[in-house]
Amino acid sequence: MPASFGNRIRVTLFGQSHSAAMGAVIDGLPAGFPIDTQGLAAFMARRAPGGTYSTKRREADAVEFLSGLVESASAPGGTDGTGLVTCGAPVAFLIRNTDARSQDYAKLKDIPRPSHADFAAYLKYHGYNDIRGGGQFSGRLTAPLCAAGYLCKCLLKQKGVTIVSHIASVGGVCDTPLDPMALDPSYAARLADPFPVLDEDARAKMQETILAAARSGDSVGGTIEVGVYGFPAGHGGPFFGGIEGTISQALFAIPAVKGVEFGAGFGFAGMHGSEANDPYTIDASGEPRPASNRCGGILGGISSGLPILFRAAFKPTPSIIKEQQSVSLSRRTPEPLVVGGRHDPCIVPRAAVVCEAAAALALMNTEDETIE
Amino acid sequence: MPASFGNRIRVTLFGQSHSAAMGAVIDGLPAGFPIDTQGLAAFMARRAPGGTYSTKRREADAVEFLSGLVESASAPGGTDGTGLVTCGAPVAFLIRNTDARSQDYAKLKDIPRPSHADFAAYLKYHGYNDIRGGGQFSGRLTAPLCAAGYLCKCLLKQKGVTIVSHIASVGGVCDTPLDPMALDPSYAARLADPFPVLDEDARAKMQETILAAARSGDSVGGTIEVGVYGFPAGHGGPFFGGIEGTISQALFAIPAVKGVEFGAGFGFAGMHGSEANDPYTIDASGEPRPASNRCGGILGGISSGLPILFRAAFKPTPSIIKEQQSVSLSRRTPEPLVVGGRHDPCIVPRAAVVCEAAAALALMNTEDETIE
Amino acid sequence: MPASFGNRIRVTLFGQSHSAAMGAVIDGLPAGFPIDTQGLAAFMARRAPGGTYSTKRREADAVEFLSGLVESASAPGGTDGTGLVTCGAPVAFLIRNTDARSQDYAKLKDIPRPSHADFAAYLKYHGYNDIRGGGQFSGRLTAPLCAAGYLCKCLLKQKGVTIVSHIASVGGVCDTPLDPMALDPSYAARLADPFPVLDEDARAKMQETILAAARSGDSVGGTIEVGVYGFPAGHGGPFFGGIEGTISQALFAIPAVKGVEFGAGFGFAGMHGSEANDPYTIDASGEPRPASNRCGGILGGISSGLPILFRAAFKPTPSIIKEQQSVSLSRRTPEPLVVGGRHDPCIVPRAAVVCEAAAALALMNTEDETIE
Amino acid sequence: MPASFGNRIRVTLFGQSHSAAMGAVIDGLPAGFPIDTQGLAAFMARRAPGGTYSTKRREADAVEFLSGLVESASAPGGTDGTGLVTCGAPVAFLIRNTDARSQDYAKLKDIPRPSHADFAAYLKYHGYNDIRGGGQFSGRLTAPLCAAGYLCKCLLKQKGVTIVSHIASVGGVCDTPLDPMALDPSYAARLADPFPVLDEDARAKMQETILAAARSGDSVGGTIEVGVYGFPAGHGGPFFGGIEGTISQALFAIPAVKGVEFGAGFGFAGMHGSEANDPYTIDASGEPRPASNRCGGILGGISSGLPILFRAAFKPTPSIIKEQQSVSLSRRTPEPLVVGGRHDPCIVPRAAVVCEAAAALALMNTEDETIE
Repeated sequence: MPASFGNRIRVTLFGQSHSAAMGAVIDGLPAGFPIDTQGLAAFMARRAPGGTYSTKRREADAVEFLSGLVESASAPGGTDGTGLVTCGAPVAFLIRNTDARSQDYAKLKDIPRPSHADFAAYLKYHGYNDIRGGGQFSGRLTAPLCAAGYLCKCLLKQKGVTIVSHIASVGGVCDTPLDPMALDPSYAARLADPFPVLDEDARAKMQETILAAARSGDSVGGTIEVGVYGFPAGHGGPFFGGIEGTISQALFAIPAVKGVEFGAGFGFAGMHGSEANDPYTIDASGEPRPASNRCGGILGGISSGLPILFRAAFKPTPSIIKEQQSVSLSRRTPEPLVVGGRHDPCIVPRAAVVCEAAAALALMNTEDETIE
Repeated sequence: MPASFGNRIRVTLFGQSHSAAMGAVIDGLPAGFPIDTQGLAAFMARRAPGGTYSTKRREADAVEFLSGLVESASAPGGTDGTGLVTCGAPVAFLIRNTDARSQDYAKLKDIPRPSHADFAAYLKYHGYNDIRGGGQFSGRLTAPLCAAGYLCKCLLKQKGVTIVSHIASVGGVCDTPLDPMALDPSYAARLADPFPVLDEDARAKMQETILAAARSGDSVGGTIEVGVYGFPAGHGGPFFGGIEGTISQALFAIPAVKGVEFGAGFGFAGMHGSEANDPYTIDASGEPRPASNRCGGILGGISSGLPILFRAAFKPTPSIIKEQQSVSLSRRTPEPLVVGGRHDPCIVPRAAVVCEAAAALALMNTEDETIE
Repeated sequence: MPASFGNRIRVTLFGQSHSAAMGAVIDGLPAGFPIDTQGLAAFMARRAPGGTYSTKRREADAVEFLSGLVESASAPGGTDGTGLVTCGAPVAFLIRNTDARSQDYAKLKDIPRPSHADFAAYLKYHGYNDIRGGGQFSGRLTAPLCAAGYLCKCLLKQKGVTIVSHIASVGGVCDTPLDPMALDPSYAARLADPFPVLDEDARAKMQETILAAARSGDSVGGTIEVGVYGFPAGHGGPFFGGIEGTISQALFAIPAVKGVEFGAGFGFAGMHGSEANDPYTIDASGEPRPASNRCGGILGGISSGLPILFRAAFKPTPSIIKEQQSVSLSRRTPEPLVVGGRHDPCIVPRAAVVCEAAAALALMNTEDETIE
Repeated sequence: MPASFGNRIRVTLFGQSHSAAMGAVIDGLPAGFPIDTQGLAAFMARRAPGGTYSTKRREADAVEFLSGLVESASAPGGTDGTGLVTCGAPVAFLIRNTDARSQDYAKLKDIPRPSHADFAAYLKYHGYNDIRGGGQFSGRLTAPLCAAGYLCKCLLKQKGVTIVSHIASVGGVCDTPLDPMALDPSYAARLADPFPVLDEDARAKMQETILAAARSGDSVGGTIEVGVYGFPAGHGGPFFGGIEGTISQALFAIPAVKGVEFGAGFGFAGMHGSEANDPYTIDASGEPRPASNRCGGILGGISSGLPILFRAAFKPTPSIIKEQQSVSLSRRTPEPLVVGGRHDPCIVPRAAVVCEAAAALALMNTEDETIE
């Protein structure tokens, strides 16, 4: 079913860009798990609109819990009795849509935006689709995905797993890749930024690329790289239970993702086995492990014990101000289109945290070790 | 669960490279569906080992049906009463493993092949994994996937959907891309080859690349491109029900796939919206449709009515003859490794038909239109 | 996952008796489906507390839609633009908990009610369970199940399917069974009652039984019978896809259900085949059909074309005023318990509509005919 | 999907009564789990046909493993290297159909047996259903269910869980119920019988009831009671994750089951709360637990720590020799029917072990404790 993901931690999303609210139900969280509401707000802020490089729509995106929690003195912020822990019931929350300007979308009901989901939704739902703000296909729906993914990220954190992300490229400008062998202690500070990059020169060039696109009424695409450090070896599985497939399914739920690759990814296509293979070594603790990580931490769908590394490709925002060729669905005639409304010239910076959330959700749903 | 895929047509795989048999159970096929056993054999032959560019292991890979079929005079080959149709019960079949030489693998139980699933399987299954021929991680398991996918491909064919594939690249050598707008009638003949390419110059260069790798005891990677023509608009869905995610999950079940991209894919990352967007036009029949197909036939996870196009990246076969650095799992010491056995210097040619099968299986499991 | 049911129309429930709200997400409803909000309110009123024979807790149980709907002039109540239709996105709604008196439950955190879920929840969630009002185990959670089931019932109604229910027994007092062969036109009026029975004498005796139990600080059990008329033949399936199993799984989600039987049910255990079998006949339209319906409309897990009939057994409400023997969980000592709060002396009358909802949900998730 | 059950240990069944073979794929078994092939054969023998009270069809029902196992010296029977353990890959097996006499069924293709699945299958599969021996609706399909359930039963045994069953009634003759509070050590010996009862007088009367039915060309129904001893408290869950619903779904996959009840079951409908409730006590080890077990070991869908007890009602075999009224499907005319072939006058004795298997499969798929 489209709205649900996972058989261990199942997230079910709901909402449209301009519905009363959007949100999610999360089933399977362990009871007694403390909710770090401040950490959640900080995580959501990394995705929130409002920065220089994003849409002018401004919403607090406050997560309002409806069920699944009880008060507990042991939870963060809980000294005054306001700390919250899970009680074993499904956790449901909503995020209100407060800054919707639906009138911007009247024209688009008849004249669809090129390369936007509006057209396919019109075909699928026979015109009943909610056109306002892109309906359920809006990037706004990544807000409940982030909130749900944050809880998964916290569960993983408890097990010693750290997930980081950065803008790997915007237009043709590339950042330094993440360290494939170990978590760099400087990442925590450097990648908490709303425009997360490792190379300051790349940052400046990427930002200029985005501003140039915005100035010409255009948009620009890019890639996000995610690194998962500390994930235990031996999770995942063969066939349809592989970690690559599970992460991919979660990533393609993010609007605008059109490609996913693990480790060397498409680069493998040009390699020989002798270049591609990761030899084994005995590490300092006497354990066998790969000595390099071109495989992105996954062998046969199973975690190898090395960091899990992947990249997702984002197409440029389809909503651009430049005039484009469209059609009138009612009159069956060509119509030029200039898109109004408030749109991101580049959604890639805000997408980094969404990719982390998707990865966390996916990894909480990979198979554990199965030995008794 | 790792072995199963799909909620409409569910395929459950089983088997290891050297187990008595491998096979699948297919649940959800409509009753009265005729099995084209000759077509199935031809499809399987495209994946079968034995060609110049593949392993020397030779097996008939005959599909032996165990259940789910009844004889019917109306089925292909049925004039003498031997035609088979589905009866509504799950269709189960097996493929026997007849040319297994398990002694080749004794050494690998202790000294894992770099970048092969052996090592991860050892970690996950605590040494109980079946090492013979790579166990359930062997490329041989794509044989039952092909047989199951072929039945899905026949179901789609009944609805007017054609799936074709070719070797998009080997090493750095690229073939001409598939036509993104319409099925080229010449594809049927040109792509039925065990080494399916469109450009004869590319064929020669690719084959030379593979033979050169084989001569030096090495292997080489590549990409497969698949085109789905005639798939109806309005299938798939938002969130986790998108066609990209569903196809990806099926593709990553194929050993060695490390990346998947749709339409312009990773190329989008370097584009502006004005270059990337597919404008709309009114076609000859008076219907609105995209005038170009950089989106690969999918918008918002939903089919647009244009061909669905994607590429999968394959890493080079990890089993190479060149000496590599490995370790002894029992002694915790470095060990050089020279892999014996019979291995493909390039699995990409045989993988084309497997990608078609995975696509067919995925597409039979995307959501239909939901209007009543 | 506990909170979700269904692979065609998937309902995901959330909420506890005293959480901010409870509700559900419904995925898979067709787009353009009109919501009959008045019909929904009337259906919910049949389950709502407040009658003579139920708890004194009073709540409007208004269903507040959060997403999945758009305004449409074509929907009921839509002449002024307020009619609502589905837009293809998941439909989410909440029901607020407004009359919660959590202080009634402080004692029960330590001294569990005999035969109530409190004790098992304490074991499962290690004391983190929400004790207030029974938490997620409260009968209140049948409110969102009813609302979701009502939408399924409307979908079935469009296909000509009518679902009715009545109190088959309370204590030892039995009502007349439903007609096993055809829908009695008088049912619509007679069974819309908050205390739905067919036999007025039985009604009086059942009500006296309940009042007598209430007077003595006790409660009483009973059974509900449901009839599904007009359900098409050939739905459902063998093995785990049978209609009995699917309906049962939905029914056992209703707190207090401890048995389910179809047609003659447990009565079959004392019969001979010659008494139990339903012979075939040719009906007035020339079609073959069973001439009797001891099988409850289901053969081999598949609908036979006759009405589907089943009964669910409800245990008496565990929360009784009479003193009972319990224990202190903290002190590990015996403790007598007198339960306060507001509880139903018999939940069976309010359960009828819940069983209809569960049946509707289950039937929307049985397999269709599979012929192409 | 009809053929599959479970999200932790998933069993996928295949086969028809007269197909080449039937069998199952079992996904999710832990690696390194030893297969007790002698125990399996003994378990299968309890279901096998051939006794005085069953069909004359005789088949060895040998389980032939196809995949998922490797040889291990540590497994039972493994001193000579022939012991088998799971390797983490899906375990697939088949059971050949060797004594099929398909000609017995030619007539039934046109003249369906009253109350048999043949008629519903004809409607669902539009005449393509496999009529031979009842096709996939045959009781023979309980053989692979038994084999799969046996492996689950062994897994549970490792955790200290014992499952026993007996014939609770045949016709109107009832056996002594199982002990609801603790496993009686004598059960192991007394219930290993192919006709498992506790009361020898009941045995004689039941057998006489069956023989009398057989003599008059008739059949007779009955009930099976299952007891699960040692199952840990706190498993299962609310809503659709309850143990009752999970067990029921598995039980209704057994042909002829028409009712399921837990603990006092339908008896609750006539009780007051003060009679029905199980008071709490502090047991000898100082732990709180219910002092009686009318709830059948389940509260709120969660195991209470007491034995889980349930009964399943079986209708009489529909295939009886006595003349019955049927119809010709082709001619649309009434036709008397006398069923030939070899059929059980009472399938209840052979069903006991099948109910154990279904319970084991269901219990391996209930949710664990969720505390971290």
